[in-house]
Amino acid sequence: MTELRVTPVAGLPEIGAGDDLGALIAGAVELAAGDVVVVAQKVVSKAEGRVLDLADVEPRPEAVEIAGTGEDPRFIEVVLQEAVRIVRRRGSLLVCETRHGLVCASAGVDRSNAPGDDRVVLLPLDPDASAARIRTALPDGVGVIVSDSFGRPFRQGTTDVAIGVAGIRPLLDLRGTPDASGYELRSTQIAVADEIAGAAQLVMGKLDGIPAAIVRGLRMGGNGRGSDLVMPRERDLFR
Amino acid sequence: MTELRVTPVAGLPEIGAGDDLGALIAGAVELAAGDVVVVAQKVVSKAEGRVLDLADVEPRPEAVEIAGTGEDPRFIEVVLQEAVRIVRRRGSLLVCETRHGLVCASAGVDRSNAPGDDRVVLLPLDPDASAARIRTALPDGVGVIVSDSFGRPFRQGTTDVAIGVAGIRPLLDLRGTPDASGYELRSTQIAVADEIAGAAQLVMGKLDGIPAAIVRGLRMGGNGRGSDLVMPRERDLFR
Repeated sequence: MTELRVTPVAGLPEIGAGDDLGALIAGAVELAAGDVVVVAQKVVSKAEGRVLDLADVEPRPEAVEIAGTGEDPRFIEVVLQEAVRIVRRRGSLLVCETRHGLVCASAGVDRSNAPGDDRVVLLPLDPDASAARIRTALPDGVGVIVSDSFGRPFRQGTTDVAIGVAGIRPLLDLRGTPDASGYELRSTQIAVADEIAGAAQLVMGKLDGIPAAIVRGLRMGGNGRGSDLVMPRERDLFR
Repeated sequence: MTELRVTPVAGLPEIGAGDDLGALIAGAVELAAGDVVVVAQKVVSKAEGRVLDLADVEPRPEAVEIAGTGEDPRFIEVVLQEAVRIVRRRGSLLVCETRHGLVCASAGVDRSNAPGDDRVVLLPLDPDASAARIRTALPDGVGVIVSDSFGRPFRQGTTDVAIGVAGIRPLLDLRGTPDASGYELRSTQIAVADEIAGAAQLVMGKLDGIPAAIVRGLRMGGNGRGSDLVMPRERDLFR
């Protein structure tokens, strides 16, 4: 019987620019072909130096206008720089489309809430390349997902999704395959990489400071890109 | 170290109206306090007799118009009966809001693709009540999620989400709690029940005819309703 096991990766140091995340993870856990390593976007971005200090940001007038009285216009400026399009706006809350085609709050820009800390963390420039880079340090046959927490239309709360993948096929395409009864053809594609990212969040989120988890028992393999999970705009009823 | 284990429930019989799903699951697997049982909506609905034969359905003119030449107007009629509102439409594809506040394709109405099989399966009338009913047959402290596969705006593929829950708190509310650094207050709610439903799908979907899975190692507890995961319309930027 297939059993899935999801284990947090403990013992990683605080991650900074230039750190080799793949080597750190490979040194912290036993990995075998078929395992999938899920790494939180925030540490991937930190390792890649995708961090800005708001002290260095000059907001354009539009950013000042959107920020109003409750938001930092320099933060909005960074969001506008990271966005290719504003999909929805309520006050200073911006749901944006990023250059990767991702639709998420603040174009994925994460801010520290710590007083006096003006650094913001941006999404990786190419999350698939990030995943592939991490994968080079891991044993053959191990897949990698770079995950981030996204809100969703219609539903409360965030779920983690896969913004970058390497060494796995992120969509399970059941279209045209027979179901258990043998004669019904299914019409579904399942976003397995998003479900794996969500499963990993369940063990990462409960233990503070845990930026990675291993999912074992999937036996997925294949290849694909995070962008396979992005609905093409012409087919998207909500964009 | 926390480890999550997700195991499919094998050996359940074909489910029909009146079957006691909770008793069947309790008889098929060992359960202990803290486990969460995820049950696919389709078998829950079948056990509750939420099945219609399209032969008994008379489509209204609007259903005939929406169906066009490519869809069965009787199927559209059932979708319209199950919907309180059409959120988006492309041809005969309807994204609807159900009476539960869920937004999903075809108002959650599932159709058999088998030739000559005109039965359709509707969502449970009250998925939280369904979860609570299943839970009465299970050991104390076991949580229940009724899951369904939903498409999402912006992203390809379905993920399983929790449409009904019993004995767990579906949202993990981190708002105002300190993070690992001890002084950053987080602003997130995490839709853990949706992530658990997705994790369960990973083992249910790969083995045809497996309608339930057990997730162990969560230690969540609490109480809540599936509707806790539904974004109130006044806060929803996409409805």
